[in-house]
Amino acid sequence: MTKTAAILGGGVIGGGWAARFLLMGWDVRVFDPSPTAEETLNAMLGRARRALPALYDVALPAEGKLSFHGTISEAVDGAVWIQESAPERLELKQKLYQQVQSVCDPEAIIGSSTSGFMPSELQSCATRPEQIIVAHPFNPVYLLPLIELVGSDKTGPDTLDRAKDLLETVGLFPLKVRQEIPAHIADRFLEAVWREALWLIKDGIATTEEIDDAIRMGFGLRWGQMGLFETYRVAGGPAGMAHFISQFGPALEWPWTKLMDVPELTDELIEMIASQSDAQSGHLSIAELESLRDGNLIGMMRSLKARGSAVGKVLADHEKTIEPVMPDLMVPMITLDRQVPTDWVDGNGHMNESRYVQAMSEASDRFLLWIGTTPDYIATQGSWFTVENHVRYLAEVMIGDRISATTKVLEAKGKKLKLFYTIRCNGEVAATVEQLLIHVDMQTRRAGEPPAEMADLLTRIAEAHAAFGVPEGAGGTGRR
Amino acid sequence: MTKTAAILGGGVIGGGWAARFLLMGWDVRVFDPSPTAEETLNAMLGRARRALPALYDVALPAEGKLSFHGTISEAVDGAVWIQESAPERLELKQKLYQQVQSVCDPEAIIGSSTSGFMPSELQSCATRPEQIIVAHPFNPVYLLPLIELVGSDKTGPDTLDRAKDLLETVGLFPLKVRQEIPAHIADRFLEAVWREALWLIKDGIATTEEIDDAIRMGFGLRWGQMGLFETYRVAGGPAGMAHFISQFGPALEWPWTKLMDVPELTDELIEMIASQSDAQSGHLSIAELESLRDGNLIGMMRSLKARGSAVGKVLADHEKTIEPVMPDLMVPMITLDRQVPTDWVDGNGHMNESRYVQAMSEASDRFLLWIGTTPDYIATQGSWFTVENHVRYLAEVMIGDRISATTKVLEAKGKKLKLFYTIRCNGEVAATVEQLLIHVDMQTRRAGEPPAEMADLLTRIAEAHAAFGVPEGAGGTGRR
Repeated sequence: MTKTAAILGGGVIGGGWAARFLLMGWDVRVFDPSPTAEETLNAMLGRARRALPALYDVALPAEGKLSFHGTISEAVDGAVWIQESAPERLELKQKLYQQVQSVCDPEAIIGSSTSGFMPSELQSCATRPEQIIVAHPFNPVYLLPLIELVGSDKTGPDTLDRAKDLLETVGLFPLKVRQEIPAHIADRFLEAVWREALWLIKDGIATTEEIDDAIRMGFGLRWGQMGLFETYRVAGGPAGMAHFISQFGPALEWPWTKLMDVPELTDELIEMIASQSDAQSGHLSIAELESLRDGNLIGMMRSLKARGSAVGKVLADHEKTIEPVMPDLMVPMITLDRQVPTDWVDGNGHMNESRYVQAMSEASDRFLLWIGTTPDYIATQGSWFTVENHVRYLAEVMIGDRISATTKVLEAKGKKLKLFYTIRCNGEVAATVEQLLIHVDMQTRRAGEPPAEMADLLTRIAEAHAAFGVPEGAGGTGRR
Repeated sequence: MTKTAAILGGGVIGGGWAARFLLMGWDVRVFDPSPTAEETLNAMLGRARRALPALYDVALPAEGKLSFHGTISEAVDGAVWIQESAPERLELKQKLYQQVQSVCDPEAIIGSSTSGFMPSELQSCATRPEQIIVAHPFNPVYLLPLIELVGSDKTGPDTLDRAKDLLETVGLFPLKVRQEIPAHIADRFLEAVWREALWLIKDGIATTEEIDDAIRMGFGLRWGQMGLFETYRVAGGPAGMAHFISQFGPALEWPWTKLMDVPELTDELIEMIASQSDAQSGHLSIAELESLRDGNLIGMMRSLKARGSAVGKVLADHEKTIEPVMPDLMVPMITLDRQVPTDWVDGNGHMNESRYVQAMSEASDRFLLWIGTTPDYIATQGSWFTVENHVRYLAEVMIGDRISATTKVLEAKGKKLKLFYTIRCNGEVAATVEQLLIHVDMQTRRAGEPPAEMADLLTRIAEAHAAFGVPEGAGGTGRR
């Protein structure tokens, strides 16, 4: 059944929440008193529609229904998740919860996007404090999976667990914080770096651009995949973590940060930062910067997904939950249904020729899995290696297009298997691929017969598919 | 002429420097009194040989000569760059410089890998202080490009500029720091985060693993491609940076970090961190963690390179300086020579079928560039679109293998162009690809004749190549 989320406050953060829920198939009901709320949220949704599906190699669920509501009561109606992303003013948030709780389902979870307030503060005037938690996301919410989940001693005993399970279904990575503390975990680090950065600028040591480069050309890359401690564990080498840390002892006494002190945020310092930032990034609009950032994040996250590492494991695990189920194999079947991600573009501004083959290869993997070529089968017994491909490119495919492939078995004889893919985009045939595969014994990595059961299944599929005729463009492989 | 670098101290950092110089074609002379120095450095070099070339889509220069020397005098002989990566003890470093300067070229640059000392401290007992600078790298030095370059008022007037130019030739990103300060720029941030992290662990708010997740699932990804200020600029939206920062004012007064204070590094705290780190990463050896990290970094950095953004721009710009020069087009020519990067693997443990086509597509881009299909030509006039490919897969290719491709023009008639690629790996033919292209008018994106000059050149090439015969496996495209 379609789930419903209520979004209270539809700015950069609330809009990001709305977009993620919608694109994962939830209905979303928005309350935001700003006259431009609808416009802002639709712009955000446009970006998210290009970005979030680009992380996945399967189609996302059909988009949910988005609606805007003039009152809180209407917005929270039927919602199982209520996300508050109002301005960071405690009283405002507390009042809002009172209104929400006078009408909402007592079983619904009320999550706050607050960066700094602790759950006990948020709960203090509430009718049902146990229902309110911190669910702190990171911008862009439609791409970054981290959610800091924080409760207080008044939080319901299973509320954080329920919240975690629920947010995982929309691809998030909820991190339960053991104990409430101002600014939770991540923002304490951001605040520390921010304070130090203000000093460096104020003292003329570095500009905003130099600071950004000092981050993104070095440790920022490390932190995109391992964090602080695993990075240091590696650097410490076989002598071990304890040895490494104790070496750090003296450094704690050295004047390596100014953080015992807080710079005053004068108008002059603000102007200094703003003008340095203009010099650094002023040639790009915010929309251009957002698009640059999203493209970069998608590329980095996809590269980690291919490895199943760090954030890539979150993506890969989530993708498994929305993988297509095995269809009837006895008729030519859909083996691929996906959006073309941003990193598949080439110098001609369209999907590169190799990506048609990559899409076909994904479709092939899925078909071969369905007939029994599981990871375990590959590790211990056999697999199918491609020996020939014939590709006809019939139409350009652009980034963001949704493509699908149908697979037909042309021939299956013992260790030989010939498959034919029709790749469609926007209703027209964009390419056909004929693929000739040979079954391989994975101990010797040489051609060898597949097990009888697999061979029989393939023979039956090939016979059944023969009834559907020979597709146009077939016959391009196996001539020699 | 081959340049020479002297590496004083061959541990994790010095070894990383040595590997980068070597793989970029420099000769490297190492001095390290440790009895295991040679073994350690060779292990590092093995990792670097897999990793650094995987960032590039062209072959790196032929590797330089590595030699180990028993004395400093011998090691620095003929060196234009002398990199000191000795333990962080000021007196030790100062003594070392005295020995170095008694024999080295006065024009050579002496860079120190120090994390914390300022150049004026390093220079204080030196014969020629002007020759000594800080050149602070980030682990792994063979992958991460950031080098903080710092001088003092005694530093030679053009020394930092010379250092920058020289380090850029080996693919590094030297950042000139405007003013010396303890720990330069990046390590001040690392130290700030480190101190806060110690508090969080000591107070039981989070474990090492939770802290790492709080970083790498959220802001770490942002910092891998934009830094602190550009990220906030985007978050701030069209209201502008000054508006965004002034909002932050109050937060500076809030207790969002403990950084006014320094936790005491007791044995108990050290043990707590070490055992949490074991629970988090203890199932992997340091070598396995290094390999995981390198693979992740390569994937992320390659994804940014494809976009020419952030660290990817550094890579792309450097790659241009080592691009192969145009050979004689009148004989079948090498159009591809590269190592197979880690992210080209598939479920069968070998290079995926689509990557053969990707390699061919790179070769094709290079050939088409040489005949005049420049980015400018594509933007304003025409390009070549592939309409058909026929691929024969003849041998498995593994990650780290070096592959090359020869391109032969089979046919060139007006808007039609047929190319044939022979892809070789370890001396044997691993695949052949026949590619049929059509010239396209980029205004209409429809087939159209190429300019006479380009058509004539192609005709002449096709005629010249005909003398070399029809390759085995040709004839797989253009049948319909």
